[in-house]
Amino acid sequence: MSQEVFEKYESNVRSYSRTFPTVFTWAKGSLLHDTAGREFIDFFNGAGALNYGHNPDYIKAKLAAYLESDGIMHALDMYTVPKAEFIEYFETKILAPRGLDYKIMFTGPTGTNAIEAGLKLARKITGRTGVFAFQGGYHGMTLGALALTTDAGSRAGAGVPLGNVTHLPAPYQYGEEFALTYFEDLITYDHSGVELPAALVVETVQAEGGVHVFSAAFLQGLERICKQYGILLLVDDIQVGCARTGRFFSFERAGIHPDIVAVSKSIGGYGMPLALLLFRPDMDIWKPGEHNGTFRGNQLSIVAAKAGLEVLLQDRVEAGVAEREAIVRDFLLQEVANIPGVKEVRGIGLIWGVDLGSDALAGAASKAAYQAGLIMERAGRDNSVLKIMPSLVIPLDTLRQGLEIVAHSVNTALAGVSSV
Amino acid sequence: MSQEVFEKYESNVRSYSRTFPTVFTWAKGSLLHDTAGREFIDFFNGAGALNYGHNPDYIKAKLAAYLESDGIMHALDMYTVPKAEFIEYFETKILAPRGLDYKIMFTGPTGTNAIEAGLKLARKITGRTGVFAFQGGYHGMTLGALALTTDAGSRAGAGVPLGNVTHLPAPYQYGEEFALTYFEDLITYDHSGVELPAALVVETVQAEGGVHVFSAAFLQGLERICKQYGILLLVDDIQVGCARTGRFFSFERAGIHPDIVAVSKSIGGYGMPLALLLFRPDMDIWKPGEHNGTFRGNQLSIVAAKAGLEVLLQDRVEAGVAEREAIVRDFLLQEVANIPGVKEVRGIGLIWGVDLGSDALAGAASKAAYQAGLIMERAGRDNSVLKIMPSLVIPLDTLRQGLEIVAHSVNTALAGVSSV
Amino acid sequence: MSQEVFEKYESNVRSYSRTFPTVFTWAKGSLLHDTAGREFIDFFNGAGALNYGHNPDYIKAKLAAYLESDGIMHALDMYTVPKAEFIEYFETKILAPRGLDYKIMFTGPTGTNAIEAGLKLARKITGRTGVFAFQGGYHGMTLGALALTTDAGSRAGAGVPLGNVTHLPAPYQYGEEFALTYFEDLITYDHSGVELPAALVVETVQAEGGVHVFSAAFLQGLERICKQYGILLLVDDIQVGCARTGRFFSFERAGIHPDIVAVSKSIGGYGMPLALLLFRPDMDIWKPGEHNGTFRGNQLSIVAAKAGLEVLLQDRVEAGVAEREAIVRDFLLQEVANIPGVKEVRGIGLIWGVDLGSDALAGAASKAAYQAGLIMERAGRDNSVLKIMPSLVIPLDTLRQGLEIVAHSVNTALAGVSSV
Amino acid sequence: MSQEVFEKYESNVRSYSRTFPTVFTWAKGSLLHDTAGREFIDFFNGAGALNYGHNPDYIKAKLAAYLESDGIMHALDMYTVPKAEFIEYFETKILAPRGLDYKIMFTGPTGTNAIEAGLKLARKITGRTGVFAFQGGYHGMTLGALALTTDAGSRAGAGVPLGNVTHLPAPYQYGEEFALTYFEDLITYDHSGVELPAALVVETVQAEGGVHVFSAAFLQGLERICKQYGILLLVDDIQVGCARTGRFFSFERAGIHPDIVAVSKSIGGYGMPLALLLFRPDMDIWKPGEHNGTFRGNQLSIVAAKAGLEVLLQDRVEAGVAEREAIVRDFLLQEVANIPGVKEVRGIGLIWGVDLGSDALAGAASKAAYQAGLIMERAGRDNSVLKIMPSLVIPLDTLRQGLEIVAHSVNTALAGVSSV
Repeated sequence: MSQEVFEKYESNVRSYSRTFPTVFTWAKGSLLHDTAGREFIDFFNGAGALNYGHNPDYIKAKLAAYLESDGIMHALDMYTVPKAEFIEYFETKILAPRGLDYKIMFTGPTGTNAIEAGLKLARKITGRTGVFAFQGGYHGMTLGALALTTDAGSRAGAGVPLGNVTHLPAPYQYGEEFALTYFEDLITYDHSGVELPAALVVETVQAEGGVHVFSAAFLQGLERICKQYGILLLVDDIQVGCARTGRFFSFERAGIHPDIVAVSKSIGGYGMPLALLLFRPDMDIWKPGEHNGTFRGNQLSIVAAKAGLEVLLQDRVEAGVAEREAIVRDFLLQEVANIPGVKEVRGIGLIWGVDLGSDALAGAASKAAYQAGLIMERAGRDNSVLKIMPSLVIPLDTLRQGLEIVAHSVNTALAGVSSV
Repeated sequence: MSQEVFEKYESNVRSYSRTFPTVFTWAKGSLLHDTAGREFIDFFNGAGALNYGHNPDYIKAKLAAYLESDGIMHALDMYTVPKAEFIEYFETKILAPRGLDYKIMFTGPTGTNAIEAGLKLARKITGRTGVFAFQGGYHGMTLGALALTTDAGSRAGAGVPLGNVTHLPAPYQYGEEFALTYFEDLITYDHSGVELPAALVVETVQAEGGVHVFSAAFLQGLERICKQYGILLLVDDIQVGCARTGRFFSFERAGIHPDIVAVSKSIGGYGMPLALLLFRPDMDIWKPGEHNGTFRGNQLSIVAAKAGLEVLLQDRVEAGVAEREAIVRDFLLQEVANIPGVKEVRGIGLIWGVDLGSDALAGAASKAAYQAGLIMERAGRDNSVLKIMPSLVIPLDTLRQGLEIVAHSVNTALAGVSSV
Repeated sequence: MSQEVFEKYESNVRSYSRTFPTVFTWAKGSLLHDTAGREFIDFFNGAGALNYGHNPDYIKAKLAAYLESDGIMHALDMYTVPKAEFIEYFETKILAPRGLDYKIMFTGPTGTNAIEAGLKLARKITGRTGVFAFQGGYHGMTLGALALTTDAGSRAGAGVPLGNVTHLPAPYQYGEEFALTYFEDLITYDHSGVELPAALVVETVQAEGGVHVFSAAFLQGLERICKQYGILLLVDDIQVGCARTGRFFSFERAGIHPDIVAVSKSIGGYGMPLALLLFRPDMDIWKPGEHNGTFRGNQLSIVAAKAGLEVLLQDRVEAGVAEREAIVRDFLLQEVANIPGVKEVRGIGLIWGVDLGSDALAGAASKAAYQAGLIMERAGRDNSVLKIMPSLVIPLDTLRQGLEIVAHSVNTALAGVSSV
Repeated sequence: MSQEVFEKYESNVRSYSRTFPTVFTWAKGSLLHDTAGREFIDFFNGAGALNYGHNPDYIKAKLAAYLESDGIMHALDMYTVPKAEFIEYFETKILAPRGLDYKIMFTGPTGTNAIEAGLKLARKITGRTGVFAFQGGYHGMTLGALALTTDAGSRAGAGVPLGNVTHLPAPYQYGEEFALTYFEDLITYDHSGVELPAALVVETVQAEGGVHVFSAAFLQGLERICKQYGILLLVDDIQVGCARTGRFFSFERAGIHPDIVAVSKSIGGYGMPLALLLFRPDMDIWKPGEHNGTFRGNQLSIVAAKAGLEVLLQDRVEAGVAEREAIVRDFLLQEVANIPGVKEVRGIGLIWGVDLGSDALAGAASKAAYQAGLIMERAGRDNSVLKIMPSLVIPLDTLRQGLEIVAHSVNTALAGVSSV
């Protein structure tokens, strides 16, 4: 199939199609297929929206059955059977066993919408306007969330000054200790030029920021400071939640209890649009409809979401992540980290970054990978980090195959440079 | 099924579930069913997202087939077969016959996201920050769109001052002529206190604002002023597009050519989350990825969208709207408008409002309708307008049945008042 | 003396020197003198800062004596003898007889600084961020005040979007009744897109806006609406206070009691920099130093201010204004208003405007006046209004002489046009 | 004289009068006198506005003569003889010998107004909205300048979110090298969340921030980074200019050439209100009147300003500062720095701070000083720094006398603590 129709009619804003210039048809598990009959291993997985891989049969069957039954599809925030079942399952099987007690808010079905809702709630509760977030963070593209987002390209689209947000240095910039000190100093120095914020918004692993894992100690430090000064802690678990880092919530490893959690992407189970905001029950001061959205009640997404959670538990996905994490880590450290020119390899669970230190190198590696049959995104400073994000249930041999391509691509890119 | 799980776990922000306090199970065409076995006629239709009714078989079959085929479900902005087919169909079957030439941008799958993208584009193109919108307008809940949205309840959630938007008086407030004069005066009076805006954002029919139909002449006036002063005209066709007013685009009746059009809700065909931004090809100055979103490539929504357009054309839905519009208009004017206490009946196509002038009266009518088996929303000033928005393909007898309940409910509400 | 030093070294921002291109040396009463020995009648009077004319002997003597005595000159907000005397005099001789009970705040010695202080206070008291002001209004050039100011030229300097202000249509645009209705509608319509403001800021006579006198009834209407909805009424009396309109405060003629009053310009008596903010005693919730400024305690200005008030009372300036107002009104109505091409003559007290309807005409008239020995500013829409603002104590024959030049200049300008 | 009139009528915002609770009458040189006949040594000097002491005879004579001559007093930005003379003198005697070539803009006569003008100009030239400033900085109280100002008390008065400013860590917080690195990183890291700013605003010595002297090397580093990335360097020399640090401009010691310089306070010579903005001639893109202000042409201030510069040169004030600086430094280091409990002594020229580390201690010391006949302000973190700012021409014995009181006061305050 020709790509002409896209070039003619689709806006120039299209992006991934430039990196992966083919037309995709069907997909299953960790494999993508294009109209030319080519097969690709997927280390991209919908930017984290496909933790259970493409079209997993268990969820697919649930969707098909719901569709067939003429179950209500679009319900805004009316009560429905799928929503009741999802809520019950999520509360009793996911939250309760983790000692978490959150109210659930169904926001518009995009991560950015959940973040916008979280900002509203934090500001409403505290009566403050300012919010803190980290350099390197990515939180969405609508105006409220965009003010939190840090990459210059995204921000340039705003067209208006982005305000009410102060960005903290990330721990990988000047060290963890400094990052905590700086955060606390902003609050305690009476000439810092910044007011006490409503919330601190944080990704426990900066994904788009270049796969930077914030340590448990650092996250605990953030929680301590937030509690001490009455700042709400909002974890953006949109990309690295849903077991991506090994546990359902990415913050579990730190033993912290955020006040607010934004969830999206893989919560939709099958790549279906869904987003949730979770928060402490005592914070539920919303008035009816104060934040809403037409598609916050897409029942097919909710059906997929519950089925996804069932997969998570039935298939012991968290344990599977641990197993695969070891494979990825070992491979990257042994086969990639030591390639001359590789700046750093870092990651946790099944999100890993290979930092090549330059846009050109990472671009060359990504291109080589694509040509060798691997779909892999880039992230971070100067787009210089290869982002490795396989499905959490990827077959082990496919995983190894993909990793081999990563090594090959990095070697190719770096060889290309040295030969120049 | 008990509602307890919602009361215990779902945020207080839930809204429609308070007006329609039951648990829905399945739906077909214009009928909703709850767990108690009750049946409701739907004059609400997903706030305009279900123009073809619930679960129409034609689209359902397409969705089931795509699901079954393991077609790629989640693709961000990569090229896919369904997207190619949709774009081609939309351009050649919808746009071209109407003499419209727009580029298509797939934004995050919510109306508010399309509006945010439209604001970014308008500001980027013009280099201006201000935007004009109308009092009574509703354009979404994320921070950029929320600044356009006018109802006090929505705005109260922001928690920060909403800026860069100037609201114009709507034509129903002080007359059309005045509204145009005021708009032009703001631009030409060198002491108006307002800068030349990037765009004027307008709904041709204010839906949430209380079903106010802007006349063709007025819309032409807006276009004339926009053109004269280099202001981009952005039509928010999210709720009243997709043939709701009789033609696919609500602005067709005025013969205008907006620079930007935001489309969502019923474009998803089956209640599926989807949103598009359309704009003149010469305006396509986006950089790759400058506005993005994880779920902008939900293929099931795109499959449903194309199928929805096929329904539109195959079933001659536009003509069907005209037929039903006549029924609704005649009924409301003859049976409702003259009920003592009814302030006004107004509408176009299949969006009609019965203005009862007070929150209490409209609330009573809505409640009576629900008890009589009709789902119907309220809108407008003090929430005092009953909003009648049946499916565009509602069987005529069901339509009449629903209208009878409207008349009954209004009578009940007004009788309740007079008896006090 | 050459003007070269200015052209070489002074910023292009200089403005009046372009209209009156000569170097001034000394001044007395209503006469200005330049280095070439020319004499000019002053109908400009420091943009309203010289109500008692240039260098009045009574005040001059007080200044000289204070200077000679080595009285403290610069005292910030420390207690001083001149300040005690001024406060006492102002409270007992100006406020008390008018039934006004205000606390006095010495702000930085510029009108814009008083406005900034007033905005802070209004926002602090109400906890609201928005403020209403009128189209045509001018309130200062620092960022907070500039957001209130409406002329495009001033606003263009901001370099950032000006926010938190909504501009109301002025009564001369669509009528008084409409202006009041619109104001109230913005507050009561729950879809107006505007939140309840902290304050309404108003000049009772828009001076820079083109000499538009707001009627007593209109001002009373504003006060009524403000009181009803808990909006603070802030009268900017900077240019038209200090008896310019016939009474000390310009709002006296309407019998209203603003919550906050900004005073500057002629309060400095001798053209000395001074600004005050007056407000109801119960509103005095300032914390020490919460708004401050180095020159808020210029004692020479305070000495001049008290002496100015003494002149006001001793010389019965208010009565003198009435006498002169009659002369100006009669002259303008009889000799100018009927010149073909004059659009309107309007004014009150000793602030009058001759509206010529175009920049070019008014520019020509102003130039002709200058050549004939009269200093006169322009204002309003397209800078098309000649602003006549003589000293309040101008000798009657000088006044008549100046008025003759006005008539001559208008005739010249209009003849110039018709001859083309 | 009683203080009752102030307590009854003056706003609670009054501040210094609480620290120095007496009524002042006359002043000369470095001595203040109150109505009770007490004499105080002045180490405060109008917060830096009285570098030549109170009522210096040379300037006084010039003022008296100008007043007597009926020279024009108030002239806005019209050309006058005093202004020509001042400009010429300033350009040829102050700027030219220092190799500086600046255009002069007469802003409203307050420091904050000059800063507002500088912000406008920087934004206008660069087309950018953001500005960088330092933690600890103080730049004024009107809304634009207030966003730069960092102390929590001042900012709390704003009543609206303060935007478009990013505060950098000051060199005394985490070291000079870090401060430079952080500044540059914000610009170069493509995920810093901050856009390239229009300007960097800096005080070379943070006065209100607690007397922190920025080193020459640091200032040079700032200039280098600004030049490299096209950021305008705006030095706020309002408090520490006019020879306070030993040279006329405080930045001379670093050999840098700021793009913009804000000057006020002591430029008024005699405590008279005046403010200037200086900038590179090629930056003079102002339109006439784009920034203005009624009192920007107070001729008495301009007469005083020129006379002040004459004093500066005739009396070799810069050399006198060096002589006095040695006395102060030696005394403080030998007699104060080693008092147990004194945290730090720091300063340059004739601005010195004694950091006592706590509000309570510094308050006690300030009170003790007042009781012993010394007027001395506090500044910095928790208001814990005694700010020593004598006149630049203070007689040496008076200087020593004042320093003895400082030592006495610190001893008293610390003894009071240790005895508890």
